[in-house]
Amino acid sequence: MVQDWRGLVAKKRAEVAKELPEEWRLSKDVLDTINANADIAVLDVPAKCGLLTAKELEITEKYDAVDLVAKMSAKELSSSEVTLAFCKRAAVAHQVTNCLTEMFFQKALERARYLDEYLEKEGKPVGPLHGMPISLKDSFNLKGINSTIGYVSFIDRPPSETNSPLVDILLQNGAVLYVKTNIPQTLMTADSDNNVFGRVMNPHKLKLNAGGSSGGEGALVAMRGSILGVGTDIGGSIRIPAICCGTFGFKPSVGRVPFGGQTNPVLDGWTGIMPVAGPLARSPRDLRLFLEAVIKTKPWDFDYTALAIPWHPVPEKKTLTIGVVLECPTWLVAPPQLRAMKTATDKLKQAGHNVIMLEKFPSFKEATELSWAFFDIDNEMTGFKHIEASGEPMVTSVADMYTLPPEGRKVKSLGDLLDMNEKYLKFRQEWLKIFVDNKMDVILAPGAHKTAVPHDTFRYPPYTVMWNLLAYPACIVPYLKADKSIDHADPRIPEYDPDIVDGAPCSIQVIARGEQDEELMAAVELVSKAIGL
Amino acid sequence: MVQDWRGLVAKKRAEVAKELPEEWRLSKDVLDTINANADIAVLDVPAKCGLLTAKELEITEKYDAVDLVAKMSAKELSSSEVTLAFCKRAAVAHQVTNCLTEMFFQKALERARYLDEYLEKEGKPVGPLHGMPISLKDSFNLKGINSTIGYVSFIDRPPSETNSPLVDILLQNGAVLYVKTNIPQTLMTADSDNNVFGRVMNPHKLKLNAGGSSGGEGALVAMRGSILGVGTDIGGSIRIPAICCGTFGFKPSVGRVPFGGQTNPVLDGWTGIMPVAGPLARSPRDLRLFLEAVIKTKPWDFDYTALAIPWHPVPEKKTLTIGVVLECPTWLVAPPQLRAMKTATDKLKQAGHNVIMLEKFPSFKEATELSWAFFDIDNEMTGFKHIEASGEPMVTSVADMYTLPPEGRKVKSLGDLLDMNEKYLKFRQEWLKIFVDNKMDVILAPGAHKTAVPHDTFRYPPYTVMWNLLAYPACIVPYLKADKSIDHADPRIPEYDPDIVDGAPCSIQVIARGEQDEELMAAVELVSKAIGL
Repeated sequence: MVQDWRGLVAKKRAEVAKELPEEWRLSKDVLDTINANADIAVLDVPAKCGLLTAKELEITEKYDAVDLVAKMSAKELSSSEVTLAFCKRAAVAHQVTNCLTEMFFQKALERARYLDEYLEKEGKPVGPLHGMPISLKDSFNLKGINSTIGYVSFIDRPPSETNSPLVDILLQNGAVLYVKTNIPQTLMTADSDNNVFGRVMNPHKLKLNAGGSSGGEGALVAMRGSILGVGTDIGGSIRIPAICCGTFGFKPSVGRVPFGGQTNPVLDGWTGIMPVAGPLARSPRDLRLFLEAVIKTKPWDFDYTALAIPWHPVPEKKTLTIGVVLECPTWLVAPPQLRAMKTATDKLKQAGHNVIMLEKFPSFKEATELSWAFFDIDNEMTGFKHIEASGEPMVTSVADMYTLPPEGRKVKSLGDLLDMNEKYLKFRQEWLKIFVDNKMDVILAPGAHKTAVPHDTFRYPPYTVMWNLLAYPACIVPYLKADKSIDHADPRIPEYDPDIVDGAPCSIQVIARGEQDEELMAAVELVSKAIGL
Repeated sequence: MVQDWRGLVAKKRAEVAKELPEEWRLSKDVLDTINANADIAVLDVPAKCGLLTAKELEITEKYDAVDLVAKMSAKELSSSEVTLAFCKRAAVAHQVTNCLTEMFFQKALERARYLDEYLEKEGKPVGPLHGMPISLKDSFNLKGINSTIGYVSFIDRPPSETNSPLVDILLQNGAVLYVKTNIPQTLMTADSDNNVFGRVMNPHKLKLNAGGSSGGEGALVAMRGSILGVGTDIGGSIRIPAICCGTFGFKPSVGRVPFGGQTNPVLDGWTGIMPVAGPLARSPRDLRLFLEAVIKTKPWDFDYTALAIPWHPVPEKKTLTIGVVLECPTWLVAPPQLRAMKTATDKLKQAGHNVIMLEKFPSFKEATELSWAFFDIDNEMTGFKHIEASGEPMVTSVADMYTLPPEGRKVKSLGDLLDMNEKYLKFRQEWLKIFVDNKMDVILAPGAHKTAVPHDTFRYPPYTVMWNLLAYPACIVPYLKADKSIDHADPRIPEYDPDIVDGAPCSIQVIARGEQDEELMAAVELVSKAIGL
């Protein structure tokens, strides 16, 4: 059991390093500044490092995915040049944030050439994602690529023999896959750190966390090393990286974007709160591009866990009725995030939306406790056995949140689960009443009570996990930045330090009811417009 | 604990009897022929008994619900006269099959008058079910009406203070509610028999079972005492009554027709195979009328357990690709049902549909065992505690299926549930592969390996429960009748007795993939047309 886990890690890291071409390596003076205590932003490194051509900078900085697909489909750009640009930029992003796990640039460039030839020959694009490089969280499986999801005990597993259903769908739509992104050990913390690949750093300030579990995606998309990436979310894992890194992050309803066929830290028969897959992006319309492309491909033909709910058109609304949760009494919202919420609320009112400040709502404390009870339903503790299997230690954020008390873990019974289900249904009932009584379209709430924070201090995510518990879709909209000159210290929130988080992205969260991904998408577009994005 | 349960039952029965007007009672010579061993059909009693006028017979026999709503909306018929006709016919049906639990004819007639006045005053119908009498399984709650669901221990519960969400939806659409229908003790057998209301008999032959658990609905709809009724189904409880009584019975996907707010024999936190509500009817277009009316009312605004999946239009197809399961090796299909299947298959081929005989498919035996393991997840055995609470005995069909072995019941663990989930997902995976590999639209399979059979002998329903396990929608289409002159004894199936089941309805079952209720509805219409219904 106790193997030379460090030896395995060294071997794996050497293999990964080989995939990073020499000619794309940053200079020593840049690399010397990079560490998890550094108080620096690295967002401008791609532009300044000299590794990308002017055109590559233009490709990666000037457009969103909708633009790029249009240009590639119109042959104004080739997939080969777009893919090369994003491969290079991802390589740079990785060197300054440690956001990647697997790089397969050659495969990606071959795929791009195929797509260019296809377009030339057939006179039409392969699909709505034609030529577009898309990044994937490490848990997605691709034929021939490893999926260690940060477990040392998974290093010696053979490369995947199958694609996750979502991978097949993206390929069928014309996407180019080129990198997989870094995650936390167990996938169950907001600090994307593990013993295999190390820690993801926040490109806005390296000493801050990039969020998790899709933290590599957050950092990569913030760096524009990808402008459309795929994460997964069971408690906030798409949205927390979006919050920390300042991107959009859309957590769909359960079963709409296929989650199946991934490398998973838990048992196959998992029940309770179900994980979902969804996009991180830079614009609302790129979220829509992804969601429509995927759902219109009928994921239920690919994945037996997907639901057969066709994408439906939503009647156009000019004004929304928005119920606002400003903060819950247990987790007070730090000044930068509260300012984002209040500013957004004001702008939504100014834009003519009907804003209802919700004073009474179900307890975020109880919802968070109940959610963590659901996350703990596997009495086998499978996710932790994978740690023990190699002798590697828990990383700090995992140890902080999941070290068992001296008396050990209380085994959960089937009766406990049924009791938890009953409590969960009460939450569904109470929130439905709020929606119906107020004739609300969506909820506006903080995505978190904090911005990105120093590594290993993020802990519980009550403002995201509420919506996982309810199986409601929810989307992070990046908005404003922490500014120590206006976001002063607040004696109610001693852990908030204006200096440390100065410059960190702020955000708001828009939430719709279960299965209303179309309604949420439309609301995110309206909200983004109203707040000036 | 041990109360005078017989006294409670006598009191309840006397109360119910008061709701049956004297002037609607059948003559003693008819009533003397009615018993659960009688080898007679009672379908013609309403026409022959002299209690219904010629117009009432026309209303209840000549039309389906689509016709009646059209005529009421056009003021060619009033809801008052339609309601009175169905109240009388339901009263007659009850006296010959024991299909009802609660009758509230006066309330119904008041409601009908209100609807007639509304139409007169407003010049438009209340909704797509304007004026239409709809019957409900006893488990649905209506303000002021009891829901004993056949438990003696529930007799002294006060009448319901709330409507089930589906009840509110039906009322909002203009329906008239007038009766609730009989069920089995525990709702978990195919023999609708309980100590409170007694046993439902099959109107095609009283000595045969009417199916269950929505057995009262089956008998009532077969008698045309209702032409549109609502049942519930967790293992076949809409479809088995449809099979036994010769009606259509549509089991929707989970969460599409709201199931919430019923009186339930199980714990609120129930998980695993989820029950659904759905219609029993006399024509495919009445199924569609019900499903579209309900789902277009947005059940998710009424019921926190409902899914927000809008009704979607289905591209019109002229030919379907149909995968046929003729029989499984464990439960061989009795000659009448097998003839219905083979005849239907031939007619579908003749009509140009693409019929694929499936030779390999997942085990119905394993699926049935797994389903019963799911039905047994409540270690509290709540449904059986409600029996014990009054001292009443188990009825025969419950005792036969659920008497514990001498060593008692094995407590299930949370790990057992996760293992069961894993097995369930394998079934989803295997069936998806069959659908995709064969490019199938729907499956055609028997609804049961038998027709209605002598009381208390129906037992396990492998051909219905498979689709509950998968959460696939499934619909029974009534087709042909058992005929001893052609459905000869089969040595492979010793329990099949051509004489006993002679004249019993036969049927086929059409199954679509999860959430594809719209696709199933369209397929049921095409299949019905192809086989000459």
